[in-house]
Amino acid sequence: VGDAPRSARSDRVKAVRRLSGRSVRLREGRFVAEGPQAVREAIGTGLVEAAYATPEALDRHQDIAAALVAAGLPAHPVTADVLAAMSDTVTPQGMVAVCRLVDVPLEQVLRARPRLIAVLAQVRDPGNAGTVIRAADAAGADAVILTEGSVDVHNPKCVRATAGSLFHLPIVVGLSLTRVIDALRAERMTVLAADGAGPADLDDLQDGDRLAGPVAWVFGNEAWGLPQADRDLADDVVRVPVHGRAESLNLATAAALCLYATARVQRRQVRSIQ
Amino acid sequence: VGDAPRSARSDRVKAVRRLSGRSVRLREGRFVAEGPQAVREAIGTGLVEAAYATPEALDRHQDIAAALVAAGLPAHPVTADVLAAMSDTVTPQGMVAVCRLVDVPLEQVLRARPRLIAVLAQVRDPGNAGTVIRAADAAGADAVILTEGSVDVHNPKCVRATAGSLFHLPIVVGLSLTRVIDALRAERMTVLAADGAGPADLDDLQDGDRLAGPVAWVFGNEAWGLPQADRDLADDVVRVPVHGRAESLNLATAAALCLYATARVQRRQVRSIQ
Repeated sequence: VGDAPRSARSDRVKAVRRLSGRSVRLREGRFVAEGPQAVREAIGTGLVEAAYATPEALDRHQDIAAALVAAGLPAHPVTADVLAAMSDTVTPQGMVAVCRLVDVPLEQVLRARPRLIAVLAQVRDPGNAGTVIRAADAAGADAVILTEGSVDVHNPKCVRATAGSLFHLPIVVGLSLTRVIDALRAERMTVLAADGAGPADLDDLQDGDRLAGPVAWVFGNEAWGLPQADRDLADDVVRVPVHGRAESLNLATAAALCLYATARVQRRQVRSIQ
Repeated sequence: VGDAPRSARSDRVKAVRRLSGRSVRLREGRFVAEGPQAVREAIGTGLVEAAYATPEALDRHQDIAAALVAAGLPAHPVTADVLAAMSDTVTPQGMVAVCRLVDVPLEQVLRARPRLIAVLAQVRDPGNAGTVIRAADAAGADAVILTEGSVDVHNPKCVRATAGSLFHLPIVVGLSLTRVIDALRAERMTVLAADGAGPADLDDLQDGDRLAGPVAWVFGNEAWGLPQADRDLADDVVRVPVHGRAESLNLATAAALCLYATARVQRRQVRSIQ
């Protein structure tokens, strides 16, 4: 408690606030997880370096206070003003944690013999990326890969959209799509690109056995999708059927449908073998 | 062209701008559709009263200019400054249309013998509501109903999130959930409430024939879900299975999965009858 920052203008508060910038995060190797849900999930990962919370938030979330103490992590009581000065959000819900970056090497993911992976190719919107990470977690995916040129997963808006899932499954960043697909294919994963104009239909795929083996889905940029050169890298290009008059689905919706369809086929497969 | 507003401070520009407020929209019975995609879709509905566009946008979207002229609708060339002053967005993409409100009476929806309906109960976030409307359109739903206490579908952020789908399927607003469910059940629709703690599993439902008949899905508020009293109104409460460690799915993701699962079963049914 003695070294908790007391002023919103203290150097430590400013240093935390600067982590809302991508280049600072990369240089320092740290980012800020905001809100009780994110802090709670972060503690279990061993990535937390320090937590800052208002007395009110600590009282409301005593389980988090206990977990911080049990993990031997420095937890600093601060005023709401100090916390607001640290945070990108207007309302960080009384609590933030400074964490080391979450990303892991692709090799580590592949060693675990993944069966379902989501690849985001040049996805730029932090809310979209975060929502896909949350859906991938829910669908039981083994990892999410963001290619170089994608949004930083440690962006505060992305962290928020993951609703804690950022800390639940391995995240790989910074590689080219070519390199990612080469590595996935070397592990005998089927690589499927999602595209509204794809010749294969997700509904038909669910009736076959193509989704039963290890599958990696590639999702493109929210505005321009996947360029032809990128689609050519995949084993097949798959569309989510549009039954109504919508021109397309948004990125996160399409990704959730593809990932859940695959999880359903893979799990049916497992049930029928047992 | 003669009566196009030339100044961002003109009364007409201010009158359009005021439509970004909910109470003004309701009183005037008008809202603003922003951007070429929304304007294009709106023209076909007969709801457009007037369009305003920069010369650049008209040149880039000549199909929209032609459709406006063909429909006998007043189209006014304006400067980018005038357009920005009319719009809620920083970048209205060069074009807006003032439209009459889209909502229709529930009776009109029911007369068409709907087979798939999405009900949003007290959903407050315009982006979520718009994304569900877009997904419902894509899944081939026959209507979307927003209960009283929900966000106004004519909210600019909601209109934007629908990506044109607001003009594709009937939207009903302003009724209590009780009244909506009574009416749906009188039409012999199965009413399913989506809830993470539901006893029924969406995966299991897809293997049965429960989804094959007319189905209405009820989705609750993004923060507090569906209160017990609302869940009690439904025939069953259904969870989207969470295979990983995510606490839950976001509203729009869960809705898309429920609606698409139903569309798939209903269409399989149709195929097997033919």
